[in-house]
Amino acid sequence: MEKQIKENLIYNGKIIKLYCDDVKCQNGNLTKREYVHHNGGAAILAVKADKILLIKQFRYPYHKDIYEIPAGKIELGEDPYTTALRELEEECAYKASSLKELGKIYPTCGYSDEIIYLYLATDFIETKTNFDQDEDITSNWYTLDEALNMIDNGTILDAKTIVAILKYYVMKKTKLK
Amino acid sequence: MEKQIKENLIYNGKIIKLYCDDVKCQNGNLTKREYVHHNGGAAILAVKADKILLIKQFRYPYHKDIYEIPAGKIELGEDPYTTALRELEEECAYKASSLKELGKIYPTCGYSDEIIYLYLATDFIETKTNFDQDEDITSNWYTLDEALNMIDNGTILDAKTIVAILKYYVMKKTKLK
Repeated sequence: MEKQIKENLIYNGKIIKLYCDDVKCQNGNLTKREYVHHNGGAAILAVKADKILLIKQFRYPYHKDIYEIPAGKIELGEDPYTTALRELEEECAYKASSLKELGKIYPTCGYSDEIIYLYLATDFIETKTNFDQDEDITSNWYTLDEALNMIDNGTILDAKTIVAILKYYVMKKTKLK
Repeated sequence: MEKQIKENLIYNGKIIKLYCDDVKCQNGNLTKREYVHHNGGAAILAVKADKILLIKQFRYPYHKDIYEIPAGKIELGEDPYTTALRELEEECAYKASSLKELGKIYPTCGYSDEIIYLYLATDFIETKTNFDQDEDITSNWYTLDEALNMIDNGTILDAKTIVAILKYYVMKKTKLK
């Protein structure tokens, strides 16, 4: 257990806040802990006729297009389930009637408190997209084998996407619920 | 493609740097992109007699102990493979003779440029630990079934750890190399 001595907000941004707290370690040593606060995300593995929906989106931190499952930031006070439904419709124009929970992940626990909630959507209808004005997204359907190959050959690198696909695959092989 | 108009360094920390760049989107709109620069990490799935090594470590952003595979930050100019060998020895006192690549992940591509390199270690000898003075780590061995259950019931939440375990499981089931 580490004890917060003093919370220090360094930066209050649009998507993230940065803190560098003064902390007392379990052994009594004093240290600093830098970390990002993020309100959390929700991501959806949409499956139709055994195909998986992947989006391709330019991600500024890597300066390239990244393959991901649809996802978005949880708004303040919003339930992750609602975020998931909203993002699937906003990013890909699919309105799901219900979602199944696929667990959650801590993407990078050393310096962020973000939690990403994963969902499985198998029942949805097509609607119209409502892109954020600074997003440029294309989407496509891939078989599970194609998606596994894309993980294997490094085409899919996004952590939430890999976890969702592998969990779904293992689920189908009955090791996970 | 988004074009950097101006790089703005907000915070230059010990582990991360924070930027909030001025950016021109593909559609011509101007926007800001907040992101964290991290030098990258290396993580090791160590397997001995079909058991997996997990460490438990207090993580300040979540204010609790987290189950993870051994991992650490890539030092400036260091090769990820070297980081992996070093961290396995520093955190868990195992000296590996060689490592197999398990791919890499982008933990949270919306606001961080971190890359985590994953490795599999199956051949190692015991040595002595050399903990960082602000780390407090315990380690234990778990069967693959136990580890899968810990993913299933939410005991394991760390993304790199889930990806490494599920990749190893799927590898054993021969879908991935």
